[in-house]
Amino acid sequence: MGIVRSPHRPESGPLADEAAAVARGRGVDVWEASSWDLTEVDPCLDGTDVVLCFGGDGTLIRAARVASPHGVPVAGVNLGRVGFLAEFAPDDMGPGWQALLDGNYWVEERVTLQIDHQRQGERIGSHLAINDAVVGRGPANHIVRLNTWVGGQYLTSFAADGLLIATPTGSTGSNLASGGPVIPPDMAVLVLTPVLPFVSFRNPLVFGASTQIDVQVSLGSAPAGKEAVLSVDGGPAVAVQDGDRLTFRGGPMLARFARVRARNYFHASLVPKLQRGTLLTPLAPDTPSPDG
Amino acid sequence: MGIVRSPHRPESGPLADEAAAVARGRGVDVWEASSWDLTEVDPCLDGTDVVLCFGGDGTLIRAARVASPHGVPVAGVNLGRVGFLAEFAPDDMGPGWQALLDGNYWVEERVTLQIDHQRQGERIGSHLAINDAVVGRGPANHIVRLNTWVGGQYLTSFAADGLLIATPTGSTGSNLASGGPVIPPDMAVLVLTPVLPFVSFRNPLVFGASTQIDVQVSLGSAPAGKEAVLSVDGGPAVAVQDGDRLTFRGGPMLARFARVRARNYFHASLVPKLQRGTLLTPLAPDTPSPDG
Amino acid sequence: MGIVRSPHRPESGPLADEAAAVARGRGVDVWEASSWDLTEVDPCLDGTDVVLCFGGDGTLIRAARVASPHGVPVAGVNLGRVGFLAEFAPDDMGPGWQALLDGNYWVEERVTLQIDHQRQGERIGSHLAINDAVVGRGPANHIVRLNTWVGGQYLTSFAADGLLIATPTGSTGSNLASGGPVIPPDMAVLVLTPVLPFVSFRNPLVFGASTQIDVQVSLGSAPAGKEAVLSVDGGPAVAVQDGDRLTFRGGPMLARFARVRARNYFHASLVPKLQRGTLLTPLAPDTPSPDG
Amino acid sequence: MGIVRSPHRPESGPLADEAAAVARGRGVDVWEASSWDLTEVDPCLDGTDVVLCFGGDGTLIRAARVASPHGVPVAGVNLGRVGFLAEFAPDDMGPGWQALLDGNYWVEERVTLQIDHQRQGERIGSHLAINDAVVGRGPANHIVRLNTWVGGQYLTSFAADGLLIATPTGSTGSNLASGGPVIPPDMAVLVLTPVLPFVSFRNPLVFGASTQIDVQVSLGSAPAGKEAVLSVDGGPAVAVQDGDRLTFRGGPMLARFARVRARNYFHASLVPKLQRGTLLTPLAPDTPSPDG
Repeated sequence: MGIVRSPHRPESGPLADEAAAVARGRGVDVWEASSWDLTEVDPCLDGTDVVLCFGGDGTLIRAARVASPHGVPVAGVNLGRVGFLAEFAPDDMGPGWQALLDGNYWVEERVTLQIDHQRQGERIGSHLAINDAVVGRGPANHIVRLNTWVGGQYLTSFAADGLLIATPTGSTGSNLASGGPVIPPDMAVLVLTPVLPFVSFRNPLVFGASTQIDVQVSLGSAPAGKEAVLSVDGGPAVAVQDGDRLTFRGGPMLARFARVRARNYFHASLVPKLQRGTLLTPLAPDTPSPDG
Repeated sequence: MGIVRSPHRPESGPLADEAAAVARGRGVDVWEASSWDLTEVDPCLDGTDVVLCFGGDGTLIRAARVASPHGVPVAGVNLGRVGFLAEFAPDDMGPGWQALLDGNYWVEERVTLQIDHQRQGERIGSHLAINDAVVGRGPANHIVRLNTWVGGQYLTSFAADGLLIATPTGSTGSNLASGGPVIPPDMAVLVLTPVLPFVSFRNPLVFGASTQIDVQVSLGSAPAGKEAVLSVDGGPAVAVQDGDRLTFRGGPMLARFARVRARNYFHASLVPKLQRGTLLTPLAPDTPSPDG
Repeated sequence: MGIVRSPHRPESGPLADEAAAVARGRGVDVWEASSWDLTEVDPCLDGTDVVLCFGGDGTLIRAARVASPHGVPVAGVNLGRVGFLAEFAPDDMGPGWQALLDGNYWVEERVTLQIDHQRQGERIGSHLAINDAVVGRGPANHIVRLNTWVGGQYLTSFAADGLLIATPTGSTGSNLASGGPVIPPDMAVLVLTPVLPFVSFRNPLVFGASTQIDVQVSLGSAPAGKEAVLSVDGGPAVAVQDGDRLTFRGGPMLARFARVRARNYFHASLVPKLQRGTLLTPLAPDTPSPDG
Repeated sequence: MGIVRSPHRPESGPLADEAAAVARGRGVDVWEASSWDLTEVDPCLDGTDVVLCFGGDGTLIRAARVASPHGVPVAGVNLGRVGFLAEFAPDDMGPGWQALLDGNYWVEERVTLQIDHQRQGERIGSHLAINDAVVGRGPANHIVRLNTWVGGQYLTSFAADGLLIATPTGSTGSNLASGGPVIPPDMAVLVLTPVLPFVSFRNPLVFGASTQIDVQVSLGSAPAGKEAVLSVDGGPAVAVQDGDRLTFRGGPMLARFARVRARNYFHASLVPKLQRGTLLTPLAPDTPSPDG
């Protein structure tokens, strides 16, 4: 068993140590790592049954990127806000945690997203997303034109802040704010959702995971330096130049999650997770305006 | 070959007669019918290869309801406005029409929607939709509460004008106006889209076609007579009472369309069809306000 | 003082009687009426200082229509769900209620909406709305075309379910579900919001209350009987025929509400009122799907 | 008369020179400047009647910021895409241009937006917007919490990409993409529109121009360096730290535009300007996907 903790959440350290101790007490081989430094765990993964992660959905995504190519499922203890991907809340690690140690879990396989970045006919970058990728305007406020092909057929051009392409996993993330649909985790589809379209087609489009989506970025007469950007799983922005082509399709591997909950867990927890609670508690109605 | 014409479009009569004459001239057996009276064509369908329809998408949907249970594909000559389902424009019936007569077409199979209507445990109605079904408020302006289950698991309750459940075929219809996603014709999924949600979950949800969606209508303290309604494929409203349950899932048969265009025809024509043109030509800018 | 109760809410009777008794005990002249039969109170209104209503926002709107032409303000005890217009909750009628009896209240004046219905140059109907008016498709599911002029200048044509024109009072009602903006109660503006636009301009438009908005309904080739409808303040549908013109502008009188709360009450209670609570309590997560 | 040209549009130079020559030929005193270097024109403005700008809406906005404090109106020749603010197209400068030289124009006055930026009780920045200001997340993809007060009264907290506050002038810009309403140019209001709200209030809110809106930015547990940003009129991002307060209200001066068109020009040209045309011409349907 591997155990990954998020340095960003101080409580993850003691929880991870305790989990490691319990697992070792039951004779399980355990390795530990920080979610910010997962490069060294690669050699350990081939002999690993499952990776337990203490952190938010971001921690789980980072672990899944590393573990999934080895066919190893990850399971999360949610220390973040929404926790769509996590299997446990930090305070109910009783029977579910026992089931995980006993190997009584099922493995959920989810489609990933492969992104290829081409410039003048040459591939200059390649990325794998668990959640989503966004191509669009950078910090400068100018309209980007995004010419789009589906399976080699021209679809339309968007004038928008950007286009978001999400996996079912990412469909409950940024995709929701742009009006995109919720996709069940086990469906082999991708969704393309326009982000703040200005005057162009507004509805999301669903595609089979084997469909290739090409997006060519056109910056028109934008001044030099006003480049577009690509962001994968909410990570750092990659510069995209006028004329660059981005190709999106289902990834070559599946993301794997170890589940101890029932197979209908997704729709059982979907809406309560989205309806405020921990995500956004309002202030008291008579809170005075701050002095700044 | 069967030929169906829409009495609602006067130009459909001569066009249908001409098509029938051409087909008969090539030795094809032809029957003709009005789209408003398709009850008698049932016996003819078992020996029919293809049904050609002259009318709008509504005509094609009516014909597909009758022909699909017999495994017979329909093909449409578009006399309506949008024409997502039709294969031909009235003025380009040359080579495509020859191909159809020669049997050089492929058959596109699309998921349908089965709706069962239960009251106090008893089934009181059963419907098949090619496009979509909407359950929601009737003409009276009051909020309807719609409790929703997915695969037997409670999802959430909506306070909304209604819920729309669409097939991929219906995804380019009313579903678009409510913000729902475009689904490719060959995908075996359904989409549930809230119609004007008041304070409830707003995003569309995609489901596999074998997933069962249950919606229970709660009219609360609404005065007598303020019932809810169910509308199937935009047809006449069926009264729905407080406590009634509607069950939606993929239908037991597929709708079949004969296609002579390339297999990527859907995304090739999607956006141009949606971006005005014949659907909504603006008036001249200096058109005076009418006297009424 | 007038006291109006809603027969639709059984609890309104005893509460109204009790309020009447208290007021009479303080030497106030009181008349009582049902909100469903306000035709006879007209003569009483000229000597009335304030009308207290027990019911939902609908009750308050009915009373305001009758009282406002006489310059008499209304105050509501909220027995409904949202209660944007009401001043009191049924269980906190202490100090506020005393203030009302003592005349310690301020009068909030709100813009109303005048609707004139013309057919072939002749006025066939005239309506006053406190909240809003919707012109659009009737129960039949067909697209309505709505040609629109602003101050006599052609604006655009909408293909939509309808157009909603709301006062600031109505801006927190149906307008919200269509994406319209919240307008402060004291602002002399109207808002025009497209309802489920198909392929046409989607954003709401704000106008000064003295601006005249003309909407001409075009039903095109819709079959006979598929008329459009006008609904005023959510009331019964008025039939609108092809070519009819509806004219909207600020009404000739202001709706008057007696307020004992602070002048910033509107934004203080706006969002909490809209975020569920009494409006839509979800079912328990393990509620089984009903038998129907 | 002042003449301002945009160096970003090469065609602006010859057009500006020609206009200057014509004006001088009629005995008008003319100064010329680049829109990127308007600092030196300040002394000239007090004796200037009108400033003519050759460029897009951005050029006109830059000129209006400089000219408006002196009460000098600006007029634009549109060399950009949308051109909501401009008065002339480059190829119809005949009678309108004569009218401008003759002084036959009216002056349209529009509300501006004042933004004050406070940190720990101290004002660290002050900005004037002609169009809009956005406060929200920077390039890093994390949710920002925005606590909001209206007239000193707590309204609600948003979890969103950002909040956009627009003048009537800015209501036809970025505000539209976020679903905000169109506001007529002469209305003294501001609109607050949530940008991609995640789980929070979604509708725009309209306020009187004298209402003060306070927004306090809460970055929660976001890692260091993940600051929020403020962007004024689409300009460069100003860093906003956790706890900073931004105050928005109508500005101390009005933006002034010289108009030769009729007073109803705004609604006459609104929708055609927004419906594609020059803004977004689609590619030919058979355009092959590029090699990148």
